[in-house]
Amino acid sequence: MSDGLVFRETLYPGVQVQYSCDDILYQDRSEHQDLVLFANPVFGKVLMLDGVTQVTTADEFIYHEMMAHVPILAHGEAREVLIIGGGDCGMAEEALKHKGIERLTQVEIDDAVVEFSKEHFADFNATVFQDDRFDLVIADGARYVAETDRRFDVVMVDSTDPMGPGAVLFTPEFYRGVHHCLKPGGVLVTQNGVPFLQKGELVSSIGHFSKIYRDAYAYVAAIPTYFGGHMALGWASDNPALRRQPLDVLEQRFEAAGIDTRYYTPEVHQAAFALPRFIRDAVAEGRKGA
Amino acid sequence: MSDGLVFRETLYPGVQVQYSCDDILYQDRSEHQDLVLFANPVFGKVLMLDGVTQVTTADEFIYHEMMAHVPILAHGEAREVLIIGGGDCGMAEEALKHKGIERLTQVEIDDAVVEFSKEHFADFNATVFQDDRFDLVIADGARYVAETDRRFDVVMVDSTDPMGPGAVLFTPEFYRGVHHCLKPGGVLVTQNGVPFLQKGELVSSIGHFSKIYRDAYAYVAAIPTYFGGHMALGWASDNPALRRQPLDVLEQRFEAAGIDTRYYTPEVHQAAFALPRFIRDAVAEGRKGA
Repeated sequence: MSDGLVFRETLYPGVQVQYSCDDILYQDRSEHQDLVLFANPVFGKVLMLDGVTQVTTADEFIYHEMMAHVPILAHGEAREVLIIGGGDCGMAEEALKHKGIERLTQVEIDDAVVEFSKEHFADFNATVFQDDRFDLVIADGARYVAETDRRFDVVMVDSTDPMGPGAVLFTPEFYRGVHHCLKPGGVLVTQNGVPFLQKGELVSSIGHFSKIYRDAYAYVAAIPTYFGGHMALGWASDNPALRRQPLDVLEQRFEAAGIDTRYYTPEVHQAAFALPRFIRDAVAEGRKGA
Repeated sequence: MSDGLVFRETLYPGVQVQYSCDDILYQDRSEHQDLVLFANPVFGKVLMLDGVTQVTTADEFIYHEMMAHVPILAHGEAREVLIIGGGDCGMAEEALKHKGIERLTQVEIDDAVVEFSKEHFADFNATVFQDDRFDLVIADGARYVAETDRRFDVVMVDSTDPMGPGAVLFTPEFYRGVHHCLKPGGVLVTQNGVPFLQKGELVSSIGHFSKIYRDAYAYVAAIPTYFGGHMALGWASDNPALRRQPLDVLEQRFEAAGIDTRYYTPEVHQAAFALPRFIRDAVAEGRKGA
């Protein structure tokens, strides 16, 4: 592997995941971005944006299942769901598996990302574009949540890391905007980084959540290409009971939904809220600082 | 980071974790092994053996806490504990935090590994060598378990991957040997690889366990430098109740033990047995093949 073409994730100084490249499927190195889609023997199609792995066909199911099914099944009666970001449409694919959802609105700032993903990630998102309930809005997500008159049961923030255009999705203004467009008892989930390496992201978001929502917490999933152990998914709601749903309730809802999964199970759902001590401490630090 | 000295893990074709090296602390490139200990800005001291990351000072606590505290607290009355392998002595350090343990026997095949770790990993193992209960035996672990007259409450197999000298610790003969030296109702835990990338290891071990023990299962932990999502830890016992200890029992025992942890909590202990669906399927596949 020292010979041949490789791509390295440059997110962290000191440690980088290096992927061998069997084939470059697409590349765009402009002044605005450095985007590459390539084939890797382990992870299938790998999309890297400005040196950071965004999604791979081999492990996208973990992140997307855990960010979509956990809030939707915890809620139990989600009809109106909002995704902010989520340009690869893998989150929409998982959410739309729930037949009870009447409309799934996705607000993505960049039309080109969706077109790109439609073309290259049909492996997992093809069903999305055939679904009448899929409502794609090309707009600034932060502005959308602040201004919309619509109200949602579940809001999922499928963002990049808090750099560049994604940074606004980690601000108190944005989290307040989401609160404003959540129905009473609705829930917000967010991509909150890998706490072992990006603890500050989690502490900061939990701090903001705590000032706005009655319940601010996190849950975890282990996603191979998001290097560094568990990823934290942020959780904010005015209904604290939502994250303590009894197992039999989750099992009943999951069975009724008739969804096939590769990572999610009702037991895994519950277990995901049992935070490793250092992550629990980061959540406590965020709450304290609020 | 493209400049400067780096070390790459060569365990998988197609994906490699690359660590920058601030300082080489020790290096031994002989015909028998390629060992390097170096300083990395993220993970502290990193030990790589034949291109595979063995232990780092920054994240060793996750693996060691989860492999030691889970079986010991599930058992509740462990007096005699056996570690096979575990040359860096981080497992011994965690196990010896339990005051109820009367003797901790560690059977390591290579004296030099222990001496090396004593010198370089005092950060986490210094207390081990001052503890009268630590009983170090330099011997072949597979032979030891087959021949010893002693009986143990808990056996932990802290092995390398199933290559080279570590391969024997993944065989049915070895697992039968451990069964022979377990007290009734005792428990075996094993390092069983990262199922996303090394599924075969888990399927194979569970298959062997199933032929020998009444209960064969696995639990998980997310350890940054064991790349690929969750690591699986194998679990085998003739007492199926051990892995279903109620939370209040675990909490009581953990509090009584008075141990400070950074990853383990009683909730995390229970949650670790809620296997992601693809890992649960691998366990089922192993049992079926048995």
